[in-house]
Amino acid sequence: MNEFELIASLSRSLPSNPEVIVGVGDDCAVLAPAQAGRCLLFKTDSVVEGIHFLRSAAPEKIGHKALARCLSDIAAMAGRPIAALVTMALPGKFDPEWVQKIYDGMNALARRHGVAIAGGETTSNPERLLISIALLGDVARDQCVLRSGAKGGDALFVTGELGGSQAGKHLEFEPRLAEARWLAEHFSIHAMIDLSDGLAGDLRHLMSRGNVGAELLRRAIPISRAARLRARAETSGKPPLLAALTDGEDYELLFAVASGDAVRLRDGWQKEFPKIRLSCIGRITSEPGLKLRDEEGVRSLEEHGYVHFP
Amino acid sequence: MNEFELIASLSRSLPSNPEVIVGVGDDCAVLAPAQAGRCLLFKTDSVVEGIHFLRSAAPEKIGHKALARCLSDIAAMAGRPIAALVTMALPGKFDPEWVQKIYDGMNALARRHGVAIAGGETTSNPERLLISIALLGDVARDQCVLRSGAKGGDALFVTGELGGSQAGKHLEFEPRLAEARWLAEHFSIHAMIDLSDGLAGDLRHLMSRGNVGAELLRRAIPISRAARLRARAETSGKPPLLAALTDGEDYELLFAVASGDAVRLRDGWQKEFPKIRLSCIGRITSEPGLKLRDEEGVRSLEEHGYVHFP
Repeated sequence: MNEFELIASLSRSLPSNPEVIVGVGDDCAVLAPAQAGRCLLFKTDSVVEGIHFLRSAAPEKIGHKALARCLSDIAAMAGRPIAALVTMALPGKFDPEWVQKIYDGMNALARRHGVAIAGGETTSNPERLLISIALLGDVARDQCVLRSGAKGGDALFVTGELGGSQAGKHLEFEPRLAEARWLAEHFSIHAMIDLSDGLAGDLRHLMSRGNVGAELLRRAIPISRAARLRARAETSGKPPLLAALTDGEDYELLFAVASGDAVRLRDGWQKEFPKIRLSCIGRITSEPGLKLRDEEGVRSLEEHGYVHFP
Repeated sequence: MNEFELIASLSRSLPSNPEVIVGVGDDCAVLAPAQAGRCLLFKTDSVVEGIHFLRSAAPEKIGHKALARCLSDIAAMAGRPIAALVTMALPGKFDPEWVQKIYDGMNALARRHGVAIAGGETTSNPERLLISIALLGDVARDQCVLRSGAKGGDALFVTGELGGSQAGKHLEFEPRLAEARWLAEHFSIHAMIDLSDGLAGDLRHLMSRGNVGAELLRRAIPISRAARLRARAETSGKPPLLAALTDGEDYELLFAVASGDAVRLRDGWQKEFPKIRLSCIGRITSEPGLKLRDEEGVRSLEEHGYVHFP
């Protein structure tokens, strides 16, 4: 199977949607204009063999992860994904069936979220597979949630459970698209980010963009079972709390909302998403710096979440 | 200089434009919606070290080429580029100044064409540099020119000169954006493509998408000086005409227009773009197949332009 045959085969089964006017096969994809009052969201993200996945990983999961990471960033703006372009930089020797299975994983995820795969390209990267995804989405102008905007006194929430993603979640997570849109439609979310570098690191992005600080409640941080198991098995060398604070690739939503909205938000969430945990993990502070409060008092967390623990 | 410092340094000098609402630093770039009646154009393209450029190439030219290829595809739809996202997959060891110079080349080209660089990412690709560009543009719905649409009897035009791009043009070419928009604003262009795989190969795309054939006039094909010099020096092993038909990376525009418009188009072009050659190289035929006419008669060109020459 040569490059042209591979592309022809992959192109036959791509998801589409009514916003794609011209998909695969022309110089560019042509899409319908965004509706009035909706901004465009534009994002790229890549995964590289040996860094973000191993060659031995299930190929469907490689494809899933490549697209899911990008979708998670659209979720972090409370947006709606529209169309993706897929760049596959293929290693010197590969099995066309392996590439098809990577696409199968990507296509299934795209279909679940109504995303068209409107084109892309294959090229060569002799030593390893690299997949780069470009994603276009949109969002109502008044519902777009930025990283900036957190205010002193805001309640800090996080979805799901944190830490230990390397045990499997990083290849399988479902981006929190519907959840984020529900949040932005029903509440004034002041700031939001998806967790890719670990809670402590990503919270610092919200802090620096909003020119605020934050205080986390130790017992409120939702530590995943995987982080606890890894700590027990000593595979990670990290106590569970440290894993929840600093492990990357959680792909959960972290957001700030006025404290007066916190109870109504949690109650509404439990009705709407009863299976997805939502935790109020602390608050935004007017004074800068990231602090952790536990039964012994309050202490500072260092840069990038790499904390000293006694 | 670590990754964060490099990104901060690169981010300081990026071109922007009024359509970028949020650029670098959030989960996605946020762009103003397309105006009513304008479709979105969405394109990705990548260049890989050792395939599309050598590590020893001038870094400004590497950056220029990476973006220019994508812009050339927007030109092929008669579109207007708006914003780009840049993925730099960096090799294990690199000089931050080298990366800055790559951006310098990209930024200069972006500024000339009013394109914002609204974000992107750096990642690692240990063995070689790979740059992937995602580009968003738009075009008036009634001026978007597809590959399909060529009709029997149409005149076939090509801009510039063909062949020998590897001698230098492939790293320096200026995408034909203004020229393509002028064409679509003043004429009904039936079909257009930018030449990346060689005239004979790319013409076949217009033929298959339009379900037509074509006949080229041998003496009308504009052969570049580089192709002639390379043939004389026997570096390419290709006679000049074969180079003009099959060398890749010309990044010129090939388009079809009703024959009745041909004279007016050529006259208008000479006034508007007196320094850029425009050649009428043949015609679209209703019967399928690609033919070459010379003083000895008409003969068929084989698949992908790899022709037998006596």
